[in-house]
Parts: sequence; C-alpha cells; structure tokens
Amino acid sequence: MQRIGTSTIQLDTTPAVLGFGSAAGKKEGEGPLAGSFDRVFEDVMLGEKTFEKAESALLNTALTFAMQDAGVAASKLDVLLGGDLLNQCIGSTFVARDLDVPYLGLYGACSTMAESLLLASLLVESGAATLAGAMTSSHFCSSERQYRFPLEYGSQRPPTAQWTVTGAGGAIVGALGTPTPQLRSGNSPITVQHVTIGRIKDLGIADANNMGAAMAPAAADTIERFLRDTATQPRDYDLILTGDLGKVGSALLIDLLHRDQIDITAVHSDCGILIFDGEKQDTHAGGSGCGCSASVLCSYIFKRMRQGLLKNILFCATGALMSPTSFQQGESIPGIAHLLHLTAG
Amino acid sequence: MQRIGTSTIQLDTTPAVLGFGSAAGKKEGEGPLAGSFDRVFEDVMLGEKTFEKAESALLNTALTFAMQDAGVAASKLDVLLGGDLLNQCIGSTFVARDLDVPYLGLYGACSTMAESLLLASLLVESGAATLAGAMTSSHFCSSERQYRFPLEYGSQRPPTAQWTVTGAGGAIVGALGTPTPQLRSGNSPITVQHVTIGRIKDLGIADANNMGAAMAPAAADTIERFLRDTATQPRDYDLILTGDLGKVGSALLIDLLHRDQIDITAVHSDCGILIFDGEKQDTHAGGSGCGCSASVLCSYIFKRMRQGLLKNILFCATGALMSPTSFQQGESIPGIAHLLHLTAG
Repeated sequence: MQRIGTSTIQLDTTPAVLGFGSAAGKKEGEGPLAGSFDRVFEDVMLGEKTFEKAESALLNTALTFAMQDAGVAASKLDVLLGGDLLNQCIGSTFVARDLDVPYLGLYGACSTMAESLLLASLLVESGAATLAGAMTSSHFCSSERQYRFPLEYGSQRPPTAQWTVTGAGGAIVGALGTPTPQLRSGNSPITVQHVTIGRIKDLGIADANNMGAAMAPAAADTIERFLRDTATQPRDYDLILTGDLGKVGSALLIDLLHRDQIDITAVHSDCGILIFDGEKQDTHAGGSGCGCSASVLCSYIFKRMRQGLLKNILFCATGALMSPTSFQQGESIPGIAHLLHLTAG
Repeated sequence: MQRIGTSTIQLDTTPAVLGFGSAAGKKEGEGPLAGSFDRVFEDVMLGEKTFEKAESALLNTALTFAMQDAGVAASKLDVLLGGDLLNQCIGSTFVARDLDVPYLGLYGACSTMAESLLLASLLVESGAATLAGAMTSSHFCSSERQYRFPLEYGSQRPPTAQWTVTGAGGAIVGALGTPTPQLRSGNSPITVQHVTIGRIKDLGIADANNMGAAMAPAAADTIERFLRDTATQPRDYDLILTGDLGKVGSALLIDLLHRDQIDITAVHSDCGILIFDGEKQDTHAGGSGCGCSASVLCSYIFKRMRQGLLKNILFCATGALMSPTSFQQGESIPGIAHLLHLTAG
C-alpha cells in the first residue's frame, strides 16, 4: 500500500469483501430496505432478557450470515474488529468472546462500520491477517436508555432528532480472488481501493437531538480530503454514501462542500435516509446508530455492488463521539468520519 | 510482515518507538517509579472542573511529552490511536479533537496501550502511516465513580481489589532509523519485532473486585501462543511484563502457565505491582487501569530499554472488558491480553 496526497491510503492488492451479513429489527423490517436484510427480528428482545444482550444477539446474527456468505468458519478469522455504542462496547465484546478469535475492540460510535472495515482491509493488504472480520451494531432500546431517556418516559422528539436503528452488519475481508461460494456463482467481487482515516471535527453543536449537524463537518472534511488526494470529482462515483447524517446533516454536508465548489448532490445518499420511510414511519430526520450504516452497507448496498448495479462508490460512515457525561458537562459533540472507496466488477 | 505460527505477526522492518511520554497523579508520584514519570500532578483535578476533563489533560500531557521526545509535531502524525475506560472513551476523544489529526478510537480497556502500540506498529510497517501515535489513560476518580461507588461513599476494599492508576502514556512509532533527538544522543532505538493479538478469555469470574483473576487466563493464552509461534522460551527474554494483573492475577498467571510446563517466574513482572509500594501505599493487590501499563511502559521500562538495561522484552497488557451494565446483568468478566515483543540496542 502507499499513501497518496495528505491523508489517503491506496491499497495495491485491493482486498475483497468476501462476505457480508445483516440483521435488523421490526421497524427497520417495515422500511424501504426490508427485503435486503438477511434476517428481520419481530421481537425487539430477540428472546434475550436485556436490551444489551438482544443487541449482542443481533450482531452475532449479522456476523454469522457474513461468515456463511464468505464460506468461512469463525476459527479461520485471524482477527475480528468491532465496537458499538454501549458503554465499554459490550455488544461486540460478548460476540467476540463466544467466537474465541483474536479481537481488536474499536470505539468509533456510528463510524464503526467504516473504521472496522478500513482496518480489516489494511490488515489483510499488509499480510497481518489472511481473513479479517468487521462488525458493529446498535439497538434502539439500549441506545435510547443510555444516551437519552428511559423508554417508559415517552419523551417528545424534535424534528432534527434521529431514530437509532436496531440493526447490525458484518463483513469478512480477504485477498482478492479468495474462492467463495458467491464468487463461484459469478457475482462481482467487491474490493477496497482506498481508505481515508477521519479527523475529529467539532463546530460547537451541543444538541444531542441534532447529531446530523454535529457530524456533517467531519464528513465534509474527509470527503474533501479524499477527493483532493485522489484528484477525482464526485461525478467519478456512482454513489457517495454517508452513514447516518439524516436529512438535516445531509443538507449541511451538501452545503459545506458547496462552499468549496464541490457538488455531490447528484450522487449523494445517506443510510439514515434510505433505511426508513420518514413520512410513514415517524422517524423525523432519519436513522442513526452504528447499526444504521452497517446494516444498510452490508445488505442493500453490497448486494447491489455484487449484482453490478453499483460499481464505484465512496462509503463514509460518520460518528458522534460524545458521551452522556461529556454532554452533561457542557462539552459539544465531536464528530468523525472514515471513508472507504469500494469498487465492484 | 508475515504471520508465523497460528497467531503471531513478525514485523520485518521492525518499526521503532521514536518517542514516549508519561504523566501520573500524586499517589503514583509517591510510589517506586516516581522519578521515571515525565510529569507528576499534585492536583488530582489538574486545574480542570471535572474528573473526566482532568483525565483528558493528563493524557494530553503524556502524548505531548512523547511528541517532544520524538521531535515530532502533532501535524506530522498520519494517525493517532487511543482509547480509555470512560464511557464512549471521551478522555482520548477530546485529546484527538484538539490535535486535529486522523484518529482511530479503540476500546481495549486496560489492554489499550498494547492494542494501540500494536496497531501503530502494523500501520507503520505496512506503509499506511509514516508516523503513528498510540496513547491511553486512566484516572482513579473517573474510574471509581463510573465502575464502582461514588468516591464520597468511602467503600471498604477487599484484599483482591486493585487501585486504578491516575496515569497516562503515549508513544510515537515510526520507521527504524528515523532521526530523532534521542537517537542522535546515542540512545538505543526501541523496536517492535512481533505482535500477538489477544483472544477474549472468560472463565466465569464475576467479582469486580478481583480483576486480576478475570484477566489472568487471557494473559496466559496470549503468552503461550506467542512462545509457541516463535519457538522461544521465557528465559530468552529479559522481562515478561504484564499490564495490571496485580499480585492476585500474577500468581494465577504463573500457575496457569506452570500447568503447561511454562515457567515465567524468573523474568515476570507486572506494571500493577511495580507502580505502587503495596505495603506502604495501601493499594491492596496493586495498580490497574489503562494508565497503569501505559505510564509504566512509557517511562520506567522504555527508559531502561533506551539505556540498554533491558534488551529483549515481552509487553502483554491485559484488559477486563466488562461494563457496569453487563456486571449488573449477571455477566462474568471477559478478559483480553495483547502482546508486543520489543527489543533495544
């Protein structure tokens, strides 16, 4: 691999996403992407006794589908990278514990799908791992309780608020050309061409009901650095997909980039907008949470790439790195966004 | 780089620890390693208004010393890797925010110094980064409040309990031979030869006042895999240094390895035992927290390596990945341990 420009890493062997999997909750299963998820759980508890264990079971389901899709047993993973929104990332920890594989815990909030996939790709390209797993999840109930209010309180949500997705995604990364059931079936391999690691941007937004606005500057910074480093334009891509900016954050991202003469309107989409029908599902500004971009990327998007319907995309997952404690102490919300340039075919 | 055995990665270019720095609290500054820390703060608040902001200031101090030691400005870092024990890792987030560098957040609990240093080394060796920073911290007051009891409660601590270290460590990794002030002064370069990524081990310990016991199986697993992969013996090393097993966990580690005919007694030491005088300082089983192994490695240990007093060591930092929520929900404590093989001279 080599560094290009100031901040982008070019992967010469272009590691492949050998398999992917997703799991989602009932509400997500009633949304526009219902048919794309590997599994939709009608029961918000997934048969578990706590929200946190339900989230862990959701994540385990997504990763299991990803391993099946790649035709890989957990014992073959050289490393698994994951994290989530729960305090001390217990959703991911308990999945990794049960699999008994080398594990690197991450904390990237809702950017975790990009962070884990980015690191998995770098570790495969470098030879540190032959097979690497990347995963993350979120659960509406565990998140709301931890970050905002007890569910029973039934607090009113402002229009800028986003709805935490109950969802999870997992992907298995290996060398391009690794034989998999999907490749044998004639599907296009999905490869990682470049990655850009995000910088924390914080313009002073301190409203936990407006996470999109808090994260938009980080997305703008990362996308702009990537385009400059690769000397490419938005029109060079089929899709520039952000993680969970929602309607408010997406509008701000487009505006921020416009100021620097970059127009992404023709190719931009956001997982938080795609996953719900905002009008019918009362999700206000859109979906959010680690599981938002993870479940959308590892289902609808990767499937379209595999089918050759998307050939050249940027996936830029955004995260808001505040905690309830920092928030109560008057700190604003630091945002981050990591990017992968993915191709198919 | 190349994989050797089942789980170990050999670094062919042997990236170097170009600089390191440490900061510690008052109690740590009264312990046996007092003279090794770059800075000891008498004021537990470091002039900040909250424990969490104090921890962030402590971490910023350690990383600043590391950058000075390496002769590197923050703007030259291609990536910074860090994490801590606080919910959503806000100690590290706010350091990274202020530095405005590409940032990868980690969650490895008390194993974070090994996890961050290991990933920094892999990213440098692979060419993904020319200069990478690794950092972590803990603070007695922020940890006790979050994990155990309000400080004001003054709860009694059993003999197996450990004392969370108020401390932080930072290191800058770059290519071997990168000119630094320390190298020009004739000091030995410190290099990373091998790394082994930990697996989560959980033998069912569910006592938050006995973290050493919860983490010992993970340390045994990682050390054993490393020794097998490299076909080496404990006597091949000057020191096998665990992170924060303390007295109870260290005894268990030695016992667990003994069962597999591995005797580390002659070369084993533990940062949690080194940092306090257990008899005089009333710290029971020893120190703990991310800042324990970080502040000991990035001061006393690295200084001794630089001076040629230690030439060949294994650093194996251990982490307990539970959360107060998982604990209250009856889950046992998952442990993890990541290892680096470091040489000097």
